[in-house]
Order: sequence, then structure tokens, then C-alpha cells
Amino acid sequence: MTQLLKVQNFTVSGDGFGAGDGQSLERPFGHADPGTMFTWAGATASWPNRTEPGGSRGLDDYLTRDFAHNIGAEIMGRAKFGPQQGPWEDHEWRGWWGEEPPFHTPVFVMTHHTRPSFTLSDTTFHFVDGEPAAVLAAAKDAARGKDVRLGGGARTIRQFLDADLVDTLHVAVAPSVKIGSGSRLWESPDELRDRFHVDVVPSRSGVIHHLFWRK
Amino acid sequence: MTQLLKVQNFTVSGDGFGAGDGQSLERPFGHADPGTMFTWAGATASWPNRTEPGGSRGLDDYLTRDFAHNIGAEIMGRAKFGPQQGPWEDHEWRGWWGEEPPFHTPVFVMTHHTRPSFTLSDTTFHFVDGEPAAVLAAAKDAARGKDVRLGGGARTIRQFLDADLVDTLHVAVAPSVKIGSGSRLWESPDELRDRFHVDVVPSRSGVIHHLFWRK
Repeated sequence: MTQLLKVQNFTVSGDGFGAGDGQSLERPFGHADPGTMFTWAGATASWPNRTEPGGSRGLDDYLTRDFAHNIGAEIMGRAKFGPQQGPWEDHEWRGWWGEEPPFHTPVFVMTHHTRPSFTLSDTTFHFVDGEPAAVLAAAKDAARGKDVRLGGGARTIRQFLDADLVDTLHVAVAPSVKIGSGSRLWESPDELRDRFHVDVVPSRSGVIHHLFWRK
Repeated sequence: MTQLLKVQNFTVSGDGFGAGDGQSLERPFGHADPGTMFTWAGATASWPNRTEPGGSRGLDDYLTRDFAHNIGAEIMGRAKFGPQQGPWEDHEWRGWWGEEPPFHTPVFVMTHHTRPSFTLSDTTFHFVDGEPAAVLAAAKDAARGKDVRLGGGARTIRQFLDADLVDTLHVAVAPSVKIGSGSRLWESPDELRDRFHVDVVPSRSGVIHHLFWRK
């Protein structure tokens, strides 16, 4: 069975940004407002961070429900892991997600500043410095035959797209949100049409789901 | 966690039929042509009966991919299990699916003519005579906390809808197919709008996915 590299539930603004400038502990998405961008996902019954019962079970829910399906590892950029830049001052920071991260698999954090692996509940974070192809090979190995999720941010996804390593992408475009500058995935989703099939599926929540798979 | 009763990947014609008249061993869907109706599902990478690699990974694939997600049991009508009617002449018939049925859970076949349970690979078929609520209680018990799939046919789904026991439905409508008579789910999907939210999602494959969840 082929192991896929998949982008899932990644939300960008109408102008193609996954986050704004000026990321900090208080503003993980910089000057962008994550509340507006992620409303579609937070409203679904299957949103991994949901704490209350309820939620919708329509189109958007099929997409959030698929988050963990056959996923054996995640790759993320350092900016998804935390707001720090440069050498680690200490190893106190263990991600945004508290003691129960929503990944439940090995996670490979790409950074030029490596540090020892650690485990929170059933998620182990590894810190790797390398080219996308090498990081993907390590993640596939750790995934034990399952697929690998490419968790973002936008710049990290861009690196793997440029290296032609991505098999499928689900990107939710929030057309009413404009970010202007920051971490950009694309100028337009049409840029991927030469290499990918795409289903463009508007949702009643206001986002437009873009489902790409390799030609 | 609530256990849901879910209809998944159930395809009906534009005029609301799941199968035609005159079901037989040679024609499981009676005078209807299943080839045309199920093209959308057979083209996806995740179709449970797929034997060759390949297939699409867009919208339709999210729906077929969800088939086994958190499902712990299936309920089906006798006509889905086989073409026989009335008392069993013998117990040679063990379903359409060969030695590896695609269910991988307990399956409850509703019939007034019960027979002993049997197991094929990791699927066990039970034959039960009872009202929908009693059959659902038995299936939920067997599902051990997971959800229950209501597999059809249309008349069986109709029974559970009439008893108000269904939590979610995914029905793919093939608008270009007309069957005219047989096993009917509805005159129109709008009949369910009083009790259910619905997302209506057209697919490039030609079917229109209807995703219902209880209000």
C-alpha cells in the first residue's frame, strides 16, 4: 500500500495566507485572526479540539472527521510548534497543545535548531534538520505503513510542494478573510492545477474546500 | 459518547428508488442498473470493493473513505442479504460478498425467517425478527460503544426513518437515473427537512450528495 503525504484541514485566507506577520505567544497566527478563519472547523462534531458535545455533521464534518484516518505521523514547521526563533534558550516549551496534543502519533518538527525528543501522552515530538525528502522518509518510517500528515504552516507546505512530495491536499479557503502579509501558501489555488486534480466544493459555512490529488 | 445510527453511501435514483422490481440472483437490484448508479463510488480510491490500485481522492472519496469510520455493527434488510423470499429452503446462501465480506463487524439481517448466525472472516451475520427499535438496541450492544451503520435497502431505511431512529444519512442521488418502481426511499429529499439539517453537495461525478443530520 502506498504511503501518502497529505495536507488536511489547512485553512488559508482569500489572499492565500495561513498566518500573518508577528507571531507571538499571545498571537500564534500573528496579526491574522484565527477565530474567523477556523469557525468552519470548530462548528463540526468531529473537530479534534472539541470539548462540548454537539456540532454539525454535514460536509465540513466529513473533512474534520478524516483528520486521523490512517495517519501514522505528522510533519510540521517550527512556527507551528511554537513562536520561538533561533537557538532554544531552554526546553521548557513543549508546544501549544498542553498535556494531550491532538496528534497521537510521532510528530517531526522541522528546525535548524534541534533538541531532544520528548513525549506527551501518546504524541512524541522529534526535532529534525534536513531537506523535505529526508524528513518525509523518516516520517514514513515512523508511520509504519500509514500515511503522513503535513501539518503546516503554509511555508512548510510550500517547501514540500516545491519538492513535489505532496500527494493530496485539503485546503479550506476563507474568501472573506484577507491577511495581506505573512506565511503564504499560494497566490491562487489554480497554481496547483498542472500537477493535481481538484474538486472545488463550497460549504454553507462560507469556506470553499479545495481537494487536490496528484495527477 | 452517543452511539449514532448512520446511513452511509446509499445511492438512489433521481426518482428516489434504491432498487427496482424483480430482484434475483442475476439482478440484485432488479430492473435497475447498479453500474450506472454506483459509478461515482467505484471510481474512488477508498471504495471498499476496490481490487485495483488508483482511483480519485476528491469529494466522493471522502464519502467512501468514511464507510468504516467508528462503525461497530451494521443493520440490513433481508433483500440486501440475498434474493430469497419466505422460509429458507436451506442455509447454503451466505450473502453476495464471498468469503471476505466488506463489513468486518457483526451484521444484523432483519427477517421474519430467522436462521442460525454464521461467521465469514471477521463478519458475523445474525438473523433477527423484530421491530426497528429492538434490532437497533441489539446492534448498539454488539457495536460496543461504536456507531451502527444502517445498510439498506431503501425500504429498511424507510422503516427506521418512520420510527425516528436515524441520526445521520448520506444519500447520493443519481439525478439522471430513473427507476420508476421498486424499493423507494422518498418522493423527494425535502421530506426529511423538518427533522434534519441537510447539506446538498453536487459532485463532478454527476451525483448530488445529501448529508443529513438530526436537528
